[in-house]
Amino acid sequence: MIFGITMGDSSGVGPEIALRAFREGDLRYPVVVYGDLAVLACANERLGYRVPLAAVSGPSDWKAGALHVVDHRLMTVDDLAVGRVSAKSGAAARAYVVSATRAALRGEIGAVVTLPMNKEATQLSDPFFTGHTELVAAECGVRDAALMLVSDRLIVTHVSTHCSLREAIGRVRRERVARVIRMTWDAVRRLRADPRLAVAGLNPHAGENGLFGREEIEQIAPAVAEARQEGINIEGPIPPDTLFYMAVARSRFDAVVCMYHDQGHIPLKLLDFEGGVNVTLGLPIIRTSVDHGTAFDIAWRGEASTRSFVNSLELAVKLAGGSEE
Amino acid sequence: MIFGITMGDSSGVGPEIALRAFREGDLRYPVVVYGDLAVLACANERLGYRVPLAAVSGPSDWKAGALHVVDHRLMTVDDLAVGRVSAKSGAAARAYVVSATRAALRGEIGAVVTLPMNKEATQLSDPFFTGHTELVAAECGVRDAALMLVSDRLIVTHVSTHCSLREAIGRVRRERVARVIRMTWDAVRRLRADPRLAVAGLNPHAGENGLFGREEIEQIAPAVAEARQEGINIEGPIPPDTLFYMAVARSRFDAVVCMYHDQGHIPLKLLDFEGGVNVTLGLPIIRTSVDHGTAFDIAWRGEASTRSFVNSLELAVKLAGGSEE
Repeated sequence: MIFGITMGDSSGVGPEIALRAFREGDLRYPVVVYGDLAVLACANERLGYRVPLAAVSGPSDWKAGALHVVDHRLMTVDDLAVGRVSAKSGAAARAYVVSATRAALRGEIGAVVTLPMNKEATQLSDPFFTGHTELVAAECGVRDAALMLVSDRLIVTHVSTHCSLREAIGRVRRERVARVIRMTWDAVRRLRADPRLAVAGLNPHAGENGLFGREEIEQIAPAVAEARQEGINIEGPIPPDTLFYMAVARSRFDAVVCMYHDQGHIPLKLLDFEGGVNVTLGLPIIRTSVDHGTAFDIAWRGEASTRSFVNSLELAVKLAGGSEE
Repeated sequence: MIFGITMGDSSGVGPEIALRAFREGDLRYPVVVYGDLAVLACANERLGYRVPLAAVSGPSDWKAGALHVVDHRLMTVDDLAVGRVSAKSGAAARAYVVSATRAALRGEIGAVVTLPMNKEATQLSDPFFTGHTELVAAECGVRDAALMLVSDRLIVTHVSTHCSLREAIGRVRRERVARVIRMTWDAVRRLRADPRLAVAGLNPHAGENGLFGREEIEQIAPAVAEARQEGINIEGPIPPDTLFYMAVARSRFDAVVCMYHDQGHIPLKLLDFEGGVNVTLGLPIIRTSVDHGTAFDIAWRGEASTRSFVNSLELAVKLAGGSEE
């Protein structure tokens, strides 16, 4: 099985991360990069990496010994605007993702591992672009994906992500919570044997029996009951401020279903800022992503950590293996 | 200076924690316990601690060599209901707190360090009881206190605490945020030299320029600007999911002003579940508290950790010292 990598925005740290991970021998599985050969060759030279690069027409042309690139020929060296927002590199980054997603949907690659795009840059050519995950989901025809973050010590999934906290509260609905629990269960079962899940409350003290909000009683607890009836090993809603300690320090849970973006992101990033992997659940394909942005401030200096990227590939392989069981 | 300890609910872990901390030599400052001598004597005997106990009429009677108790004579050994909710011990716990708070207001003790009450038990005699902190604040005639949690690695304060998340969003108002920033600054300056504060955003990515909510723009940023003009060293609003990492792993901030209960409680309890100290800001007295509950399930077994309590006393002493500067 070949795995697809998208190169990300040329102005950012994507190209160098792909090169350095290959150079350091950290890409332990066959991969092809959906990107631009000219950009990779330029970064390779500027950073003195000497990674052997080769253009391929598709994943089936993969051979060992070089970093293979499905060359989109969208960017020339003259188009490069390292460290800056560029309409051209933003549009190109979007095209790599569309191309890799379609290859995954056709079964040509086992998963898509994405390097960072820049929202502002891509919006210059696509004003309706709201995010990387939304783009992949739309290409897959999926409307209710969910975000999972994975680190060695904690796995979190989210009922909602990129919306205001006020809107996030409104999205805590029984049906959606139950759906995210099921997606979490399906994914975590590919990563851990006999997983135990927990669901966080929305309110402080998980609402303290309705005193501080009723979402736990009216929406979350019924979703948990539903999931249990389906055989899912899950507890909750549990007070959020004790739950992460229980999950991490006491190892009582393998994954926590969170009610909003920061509820999951705060503990995960506190525990593992650089190594986390972002997984999109609910898609017909496997897609993992680095958990960081384009980092324009350090782009093309060879300083960016490859840890999140290497972990993203490893996790994609695990999830893909699990999906064939 | 003598420091006051409230014994907490007799059914819980309060009495044994006071006894064991004394026995282990961890109470390094003169203290008197506001509580019931009969209860302490009974716990002392059951646990085989042999702590010398002595009744005093007030803090001025303190002498070294024994654990001194301002004996309220509200509980007999027959009233004890260890591990269970009891109207009598709930009411008694409330009385100890009122008594110690008044002693602090009269200047007889330098601070009040509270051991846990049980909300359910106290509500049996006082249906209007909403919480320990609210009780102390009411006795002090204060309406806008704030909760600070202190651990070795992180200090957090909160714009709101015990209300639904929906209500917490409504409480993110410029005036309140500015007031909590000032209270945080006043307290942290007693604990750290040249402190640096940060304010968390309310929404994911701190609202991403208004895309995910406008509280950062309309309420939080103006409060930060106001605080800066007053000479407070503060940054923000900062995206919550990166801020705690910056504060803890990168040591960039000494304290974080949080917008709601779990925003501060999740990272703090993940880092230090047992040792955290709860401080009430905005009072005319100093009040610190253990950051745990009555723990009925392990009460009177001698198993409860004394760490949060010992830290609470040490912190009260520091804050009191600072207040005399």
